[in-house]
Amino acid sequence: MPATLEPLFRPRSIAVIGASRRRDAIGGAVLRNLLEQPFQGAVYPVNPNATHIQAVPAFPSIDAVPGDVDLAVIVVPAAGVLKAVEACGEKGVKALVVISAGFKEIGGAGRKRERELRDLVRRYRMRLVGPNCLGILNTETAVRMNATFAPVQPPPGRVAFSSQSGALGLAILDYARSLNVGISQFVSVGNKADVSGNDLIEFWEKDDGTDVILLYLESFGNPAKFTHIARRVARKKPIIAVKSGRTESGSRAASSHTGALAGSDIAVDALFRQSGVIRTDTIEELFDTALLLASQPVAVGPRVAILTNAGGPGIMAADACEGMGLSLPELEPKTIKALRAFLPAEASTRNPVDMIASANATSYQKALRLLHADANVDAVIVIFVPPLVTGAQEVADAILAGAKGSTKPILSCFMGSHGVPESLRSLQSGNIPSFAFPETAARALARVVQYGVWLAHPAGVTPKLSGIDRARADKAIAAARASGVDKRDGWMPLDALADLLAAYGIRVNRARVAANRGEAAAIGKSLGYPVVMKLRSRDVLHKSDVGGVRLNIRTEQEAATAFDEIRAALKAAQPKASFEGVSVERMITGGVEAIVGVTRDPAFGPLVLFGLGGVAVELLRDVQLRVAPLTDRDAEEMVREIRGYPLLSGYRGAPAANIPSLLDLLHRVSRLATDHPDLLELDLNPVLVLPGDEPCVALDARLRLGAPDEAASPTAGPLAATGAPSR
Amino acid sequence: MPATLEPLFRPRSIAVIGASRRRDAIGGAVLRNLLEQPFQGAVYPVNPNATHIQAVPAFPSIDAVPGDVDLAVIVVPAAGVLKAVEACGEKGVKALVVISAGFKEIGGAGRKRERELRDLVRRYRMRLVGPNCLGILNTETAVRMNATFAPVQPPPGRVAFSSQSGALGLAILDYARSLNVGISQFVSVGNKADVSGNDLIEFWEKDDGTDVILLYLESFGNPAKFTHIARRVARKKPIIAVKSGRTESGSRAASSHTGALAGSDIAVDALFRQSGVIRTDTIEELFDTALLLASQPVAVGPRVAILTNAGGPGIMAADACEGMGLSLPELEPKTIKALRAFLPAEASTRNPVDMIASANATSYQKALRLLHADANVDAVIVIFVPPLVTGAQEVADAILAGAKGSTKPILSCFMGSHGVPESLRSLQSGNIPSFAFPETAARALARVVQYGVWLAHPAGVTPKLSGIDRARADKAIAAARASGVDKRDGWMPLDALADLLAAYGIRVNRARVAANRGEAAAIGKSLGYPVVMKLRSRDVLHKSDVGGVRLNIRTEQEAATAFDEIRAALKAAQPKASFEGVSVERMITGGVEAIVGVTRDPAFGPLVLFGLGGVAVELLRDVQLRVAPLTDRDAEEMVREIRGYPLLSGYRGAPAANIPSLLDLLHRVSRLATDHPDLLELDLNPVLVLPGDEPCVALDARLRLGAPDEAASPTAGPLAATGAPSR
Repeated sequence: MPATLEPLFRPRSIAVIGASRRRDAIGGAVLRNLLEQPFQGAVYPVNPNATHIQAVPAFPSIDAVPGDVDLAVIVVPAAGVLKAVEACGEKGVKALVVISAGFKEIGGAGRKRERELRDLVRRYRMRLVGPNCLGILNTETAVRMNATFAPVQPPPGRVAFSSQSGALGLAILDYARSLNVGISQFVSVGNKADVSGNDLIEFWEKDDGTDVILLYLESFGNPAKFTHIARRVARKKPIIAVKSGRTESGSRAASSHTGALAGSDIAVDALFRQSGVIRTDTIEELFDTALLLASQPVAVGPRVAILTNAGGPGIMAADACEGMGLSLPELEPKTIKALRAFLPAEASTRNPVDMIASANATSYQKALRLLHADANVDAVIVIFVPPLVTGAQEVADAILAGAKGSTKPILSCFMGSHGVPESLRSLQSGNIPSFAFPETAARALARVVQYGVWLAHPAGVTPKLSGIDRARADKAIAAARASGVDKRDGWMPLDALADLLAAYGIRVNRARVAANRGEAAAIGKSLGYPVVMKLRSRDVLHKSDVGGVRLNIRTEQEAATAFDEIRAALKAAQPKASFEGVSVERMITGGVEAIVGVTRDPAFGPLVLFGLGGVAVELLRDVQLRVAPLTDRDAEEMVREIRGYPLLSGYRGAPAANIPSLLDLLHRVSRLATDHPDLLELDLNPVLVLPGDEPCVALDARLRLGAPDEAASPTAGPLAATGAPSR
Repeated sequence: MPATLEPLFRPRSIAVIGASRRRDAIGGAVLRNLLEQPFQGAVYPVNPNATHIQAVPAFPSIDAVPGDVDLAVIVVPAAGVLKAVEACGEKGVKALVVISAGFKEIGGAGRKRERELRDLVRRYRMRLVGPNCLGILNTETAVRMNATFAPVQPPPGRVAFSSQSGALGLAILDYARSLNVGISQFVSVGNKADVSGNDLIEFWEKDDGTDVILLYLESFGNPAKFTHIARRVARKKPIIAVKSGRTESGSRAASSHTGALAGSDIAVDALFRQSGVIRTDTIEELFDTALLLASQPVAVGPRVAILTNAGGPGIMAADACEGMGLSLPELEPKTIKALRAFLPAEASTRNPVDMIASANATSYQKALRLLHADANVDAVIVIFVPPLVTGAQEVADAILAGAKGSTKPILSCFMGSHGVPESLRSLQSGNIPSFAFPETAARALARVVQYGVWLAHPAGVTPKLSGIDRARADKAIAAARASGVDKRDGWMPLDALADLLAAYGIRVNRARVAANRGEAAAIGKSLGYPVVMKLRSRDVLHKSDVGGVRLNIRTEQEAATAFDEIRAALKAAQPKASFEGVSVERMITGGVEAIVGVTRDPAFGPLVLFGLGGVAVELLRDVQLRVAPLTDRDAEEMVREIRGYPLLSGYRGAPAANIPSLLDLLHRVSRLATDHPDLLELDLNPVLVLPGDEPCVALDARLRLGAPDEAASPTAGPLAATGAPSR
């Protein structure tokens, strides 16, 4: 059980080791920031060459400090850090912020130094932020600690921020100040030698001063733990995250359909989504969303009323709303009637409500009150373009008055210049967020609505599955390994694979192997025609590419001929490929073709994929992915959210497919992947989702195994390695 | 030939009719703005009740003004406008800006007043901006005219702006000022009674003071003319446009596949794209793009080098670039070698080039010079996060020095707060645009690259087509009308349709009609089996929905049975539907299924659609649309840009489809639609695009005719009616 983060955020005393009198040096800037707030406890500069620094009495070393020290901020060069940390440990310091660079991020000796740093911190049961970071900050009145070297101090507030980039941290603090977004705590996590983003989320979960949690991430230390924590915390407080490094993922080799369709960044999307984390693409959007969540209730639905005094911006807001998945409902008749009672004839009382330029402050107040009381409305965006006469300040006051008693989010958009800054301040102190453009408001609202929908649904559960025979599965894998699976790049032989899938209750169309034309005909006869015949060759991954698949074989004669033709086609396409006969299976017709697969991300573990089958799916990429294990909610969303879903639910009078059976299949595949960390890739393609009560059945399957221990430690890999933070 | 716009933009004298001493009245604000610049000619306030206004001698009426008046700005109430305009005409005034509201936008009497206003203006050969607008503005040193009532004056520059919303115009002028985007001329077009957006584009085409044209549009007066003008002008000067009113389009009734797939907003996208107009979603993006185009050369390719002193923002920029279709190339070995020579070992010399926090101004200058000289690079984004020591000003100077001699666009992104405003000013005066976030820079660059690609390709031509028999086509349409096409909602009978399509060289699988089971079997025999049989019923649009399509009928016996089954299926599905026998055609197999169609937009005229066929296309919406007539370039882009294109070009070893034949078909369909304004909808679905030299063939066709005069005036309709501008 690691020690609490309390002394990190709420120390009673702070030592600055490496404090400097030069205010443009980092050690000078940190000290100055601590003094300027000022920090509400004692600050001890530590520097062997000074009796006082910036007028504060200094000490030659940490052990010379007379009182207790809760937190030490270390800014000495990397070579001196370990010695300083050890001295802190001996002194009984409880928490450290190591700003100094020269650790893991420089590789080699730095990596070793960081390991030693971590060991020292653990030995003394201290907690550590950094190394290689910008510092930490807590705006609470009782603390007022700015232990960073940032030249900017954000306003106090209820939004916490963890940044994996110190450089971006600077920009972030500045942006927070310019938007007037109040910050509770800010942490630049640096190399995360000890305190991780996960630790911070858990701290803020219980922190009464924090309502909204913001994250800038470049990598995940432990994605599984992140999911676990985030799922829980996001139910209490919104978590908004920017995760950079989308491009790094492109390099992954993709040998299976599923692998080609699932990039690492899609895994991040899936993970955030399953955990209820709001993902934004940019820091700008992160703050826009935070501004809304920090001040307004979470929207419970997508229906937006727009109130404006100018047509153009109203239309642009409507476009933006619909473009982001929000809707513009019809207003209740009584709302329209009440609007008509005081608006001029030229005004539009349909949504968007355009009060035209003559609207005054009273119109805004009355109309806003009517709109948020309308049962068809989940949120209101109020747009104001200052005409010549009506002042922005009066309208701001009217919006505040009109918003009173609203249980729904209200957003404002003040366009133009007339004294906006002052009026925005008054709006903000009344907790009405204001945006410069209607699109910005719509985008922030859309993200919050998504979160609201996530919140409104109960957390999913991983369903219990019957008829899973792990012993049989283990035997099938052992058999595959015994047959020399490594020489085949890990691809499991057909028979062992059929056995493994059967052990998990996954139906595959039973195939039998024919070594020659006579056997092919005989097997066809015993299975019953029509049959399908498929090439067997360890050298061929996509059988249809080499003419290796023949459908609708109806007689023994056709079966014998097809056997010959497949062999000839293989010879023509890949003369050197081995030919291991053909598999023969009963032809099943009808139903909708789908693909169900697994790919294993080095950091995230198994991802389950679902999409509609056929070659077109790979081009059109209409697929859904989730991180395993799937909850019932995950599986249902996957199926419902592909664009081709209508094909399953009974398109144009076709019978509906057996969706419960499909969901069951997804859960079985998820379980198979979760139980077997050495399962690297699985394609069930196509899966026929049949109508009525018929269970769905895979017509083909491919599964690749890794070395038995390959997936044991899910820490390395492209995502974990994404960009060491630099400062 | 309408008179020139010259006196509108460069009057030697201006009368303000309705000038007021109250500066918060519109007539007072316009006068004050003219005086404040000050306007470089004479200003005559006209007001019957004052001898001077704002210290300027006033005149009781326009004819009392002693000198010539080039431009009159009219701000009297609507009821007095016509009289004032007539007096202006008599006086010899050449141009008018009518700011007053109370015209078309209020309907009824206002509409009539606007017609009278237009007639008066035409009679006196004057030009008119408005009515119901914010005014016009020209920043040229020799003119300096602010004839608006906006409280904001943008800086002078080379960007012209036409806004269809006066309200947004205010916000736009303010935004231009805050971004320091220099404006040459600004026009709030109001109701466009005379001067239209098209007129302005043509004026700016020849205006030496204007390099970039910005448009905010809510409707198109004459889309065909817009396309014609924009195609020409965009080759000389970039046109960037925001078109609002996306949502209005949803309401269109869609009875055909093509109609359902093509919304009006898609028509706008197609139109802009075909004309080389850069479309942005928001005013913010409009200005970001303008900032770049006004200061830097047009990028000729998508390969971006990123230069940064901080990893995080570099990663975010890389993500944003790739997310917007730009790429990050490998740098040339000599560039990497030269970078290594002066950057520290911890720096990354791969793209993004991360010089780490120790980078100083000299590093920026050297590195930037190397990057824009790299042959693999088409554009450079320079990111600077101010660390404690290096000042933003030095880096800004270094970027200016390093950019010297570059023929490629260079964008900068200064994050954080250290003195950014001053350093940005110096960058801007050196024509290096700066953005607050890397994503913003990437997005602006991506739009400019798209434009650059458009510019780099020659303008397309509409190809000549052989074998078109218009007389036969007219006869087929006449035959359809004679058969009472109106009673069938305009759907053409099969035989006449086959004839019409044949007259345009469009191959349809020839079908023959069977009225009973015996005929069905006999026709099958004469065509040769296998055949396809399809229901004929005027009451059924989608035959497969009612079990009305039977494939692969192989014998006479099967043909007779299929006939009975289709009749029974129709009876079960729609008991009241009429049954008119079946059509029988030869079954063609192989090839790729596609859809080719036409839908007619009330404003834009015929839109040609292309996509891959099958029910899935309607769900996955992988289609391309263009406004007819198609050029060769349009048709090629349509085919190449569907996501499913690889299916046509030879997917996974399949033979390539006959794409030239498909292009020919698209041109024939385009020609058919252009020649016949009464063609409302056409579906060729499926079209089989066959391999090798086989021409493609439509297996089914549906065509709806309107009344003979229905499409004669393409002015009314959802797009033209979108939102009257209000002020």
